[in-house]
Amino acid sequence: MALVVQKYGGSSVADADSIKRVAKRIAAAKRAGDDIVVVVSAMGDTTDDLIDLAQQVSPLPPQREMDILLTAGERISMSLLAMAVNNLGVKAKSFTGQQAGVITDAVHGKARIVDVVPSRVRETIERGQVAIVAGFQGVTQDTNDVTTLGRGGSDTTAVALAAGLGADVCEIYTDVDGVFTADPRVAPSARKVDRISYDEMLEMAASGAKVLVLRCVEYGRRFNVPIHVRSSFSNHTGTLVTDEKGIDEKGDVMEQPIIAGVAHDRSEAKITIVGVPDVPGKAARIFEVVAGAGVNIDMIVQNVSAAATGLTDISFTLPASDGTAAMATLTERQPEIGYASLQYDDTIGKLSLIGAGMKSHPGVSAQLFAALANAGINIEMISTSEIRISVVTRADDLDDAVRAVHTAFDLDSEQDEAVVYGGTGR
Amino acid sequence: MALVVQKYGGSSVADADSIKRVAKRIAAAKRAGDDIVVVVSAMGDTTDDLIDLAQQVSPLPPQREMDILLTAGERISMSLLAMAVNNLGVKAKSFTGQQAGVITDAVHGKARIVDVVPSRVRETIERGQVAIVAGFQGVTQDTNDVTTLGRGGSDTTAVALAAGLGADVCEIYTDVDGVFTADPRVAPSARKVDRISYDEMLEMAASGAKVLVLRCVEYGRRFNVPIHVRSSFSNHTGTLVTDEKGIDEKGDVMEQPIIAGVAHDRSEAKITIVGVPDVPGKAARIFEVVAGAGVNIDMIVQNVSAAATGLTDISFTLPASDGTAAMATLTERQPEIGYASLQYDDTIGKLSLIGAGMKSHPGVSAQLFAALANAGINIEMISTSEIRISVVTRADDLDDAVRAVHTAFDLDSEQDEAVVYGGTGR
Repeated sequence: MALVVQKYGGSSVADADSIKRVAKRIAAAKRAGDDIVVVVSAMGDTTDDLIDLAQQVSPLPPQREMDILLTAGERISMSLLAMAVNNLGVKAKSFTGQQAGVITDAVHGKARIVDVVPSRVRETIERGQVAIVAGFQGVTQDTNDVTTLGRGGSDTTAVALAAGLGADVCEIYTDVDGVFTADPRVAPSARKVDRISYDEMLEMAASGAKVLVLRCVEYGRRFNVPIHVRSSFSNHTGTLVTDEKGIDEKGDVMEQPIIAGVAHDRSEAKITIVGVPDVPGKAARIFEVVAGAGVNIDMIVQNVSAAATGLTDISFTLPASDGTAAMATLTERQPEIGYASLQYDDTIGKLSLIGAGMKSHPGVSAQLFAALANAGINIEMISTSEIRISVVTRADDLDDAVRAVHTAFDLDSEQDEAVVYGGTGR
Repeated sequence: MALVVQKYGGSSVADADSIKRVAKRIAAAKRAGDDIVVVVSAMGDTTDDLIDLAQQVSPLPPQREMDILLTAGERISMSLLAMAVNNLGVKAKSFTGQQAGVITDAVHGKARIVDVVPSRVRETIERGQVAIVAGFQGVTQDTNDVTTLGRGGSDTTAVALAAGLGADVCEIYTDVDGVFTADPRVAPSARKVDRISYDEMLEMAASGAKVLVLRCVEYGRRFNVPIHVRSSFSNHTGTLVTDEKGIDEKGDVMEQPIIAGVAHDRSEAKITIVGVPDVPGKAARIFEVVAGAGVNIDMIVQNVSAAATGLTDISFTLPASDGTAAMATLTERQPEIGYASLQYDDTIGKLSLIGAGMKSHPGVSAQLFAALANAGINIEMISTSEIRISVVTRADDLDDAVRAVHTAFDLDSEQDEAVVYGGTGR
């Protein structure tokens, strides 16, 4: 008998029929003998509809009120799901974030969980009942105000609750079968990954893979919660995100594959600062200025200075959504920084090759560059970590680059497997 | 400067435009110098829509989950209203029933308020801000579970909060201009009542007047909270429900009008038990049996026994919605009670004449019976209290009866007043 936390997203509980379908899955898991705690998101478009309403009454609503409004969505889905599970003869009770003991800081709209005290959830499972908890929401310790956790908040609730309860596994139900070696829409021969380490999953999430948000994986790693990403539309085993050393059934440490997958990201832009005086501290000053505007910088490249002029060019990538803020700040501070001109380019793509195995396998970079060169794809920027290599290409080349690299690293599935995963409708 | 609790019902906040209109009224009242606490119901049809959803997932949902579901409605309206008020430059904060300190018993679906501890609401008004509180909901003291207060719950929240805060007045905003001497749809010459006592209002509410629910008036009387019933569509003064002795501007006790109004009720039915043995204790036994089925009995008439047979007939009225339960129970217990037959009649109407002044004015009953006789209307049953006389007529005669009595007791408005109240579109 295991203690399992299951998380269902908005598309899994979009209407009454979907809720009844999820309820059947929960009841079956409970009847199979496990203790079940469920975390649920708001139904389908509820959150968007509530945001629409808010914008109709106020162009700039106070974030505290926005959080109260949005958390109504999970109250509705959690109570309906509890009714549906009860209706199948399995006792279930729903709990708000507050009732479940999800304590956060007071940063409305993107609060961070500071503690989880799930005493009522624990009582409920000890009575043999299913506890259904609202995702995405918490409560501040001092003022008892309702907060929301921001994007991917329900996944984070689920992992945090699993950690607080000491659950055996946190199952994240989604509309895909798990984590893939690449986005199957781009690389049709992508394979589902059976097991991936937290570190690899973190690099995947940070590099554009959308199946899990970064903070959820971070939480899982910190508290060592096994995360099982799987489909709510099938009973297939999905992808287990767990610590690096996989243990097989005989108790042996399993050999890791070198490469976990290829992620890609189209959401970044590149700014090039042309003609920067090549003096110590200048680059540091530039990135202080950009950071001061609240912009997150990803990759940085500084050209070798041309000795004749004493000037250099600096390029960096950033989320395209921060582009306007960064350009405005740099333009405003031009006299102080003393550069010649700015170039903005949002037609770039980023490809990342991720695998804990590359730490001990030299030559991975060379193989990557060769694969791209053979496909005729130009590399504009490069950055590396111990388990990741990222390159920037033209946006138009990105899909070809993903397929070329996927093939070069032997990630393509066998013919008949490809048919299986090609058939999931993604 | 007064402390005013304002309550807005679902039709006053049915959509974004209505919410903005109510926000303007709140901001204006705040700017005029009063401290304002607002109690708000769910938007328009929200509650009905949520009940529909519940019925789609479960035919018999647990009441605890139903309460969590339904309270989402007020969370949405209260946060939107707070946003709209803030948008007008007046600081406002919303609070759930729990945050506002509305403590109830654990009877889900129709909980009773046991205490109000509005410390956060008080802090908010002391900071010069508007507090907006979810109506209809509370929280249990021991388990922190969310409860709902049942029909008319938001009015009760408002009056209870006004009592807890020691407010100067509780304003109940509705879609009519106040309490009328009769339902203007039946008696077009009905006048708005400027002032009415708690006792009279209780009798009116119990006799079918729908503008305030009974428990809200009971709460107001117990804690001596002046209740001002008024329209959210105009700035007219409405009806003040207060203690019996009105004080005029010179500080003198004002003379009460003899009659406050004429109420009517079409929702009752009559059961006649024919051929009951006229022995001591038989009637008591019958009403024990009926009460045991959870049926509320209103009026009772026992015919004079026919000495020859030793049998009598007993008639009583009850809510038509309880008719099936009462008939089933009486039929089942026929052998024990020993009556001959049952008659069920749901084509009755009840007219009630209400006025604290009738205590000291003999002859009111006689005048009522004469008015009905002159209009050719037959009286089937009569019951009286110190400040109320009720009669049962044929349902078809009820409207004529209301108009005849309204005229006979000089309640009709002057010609031009009638035009004003006839013009409110009711």
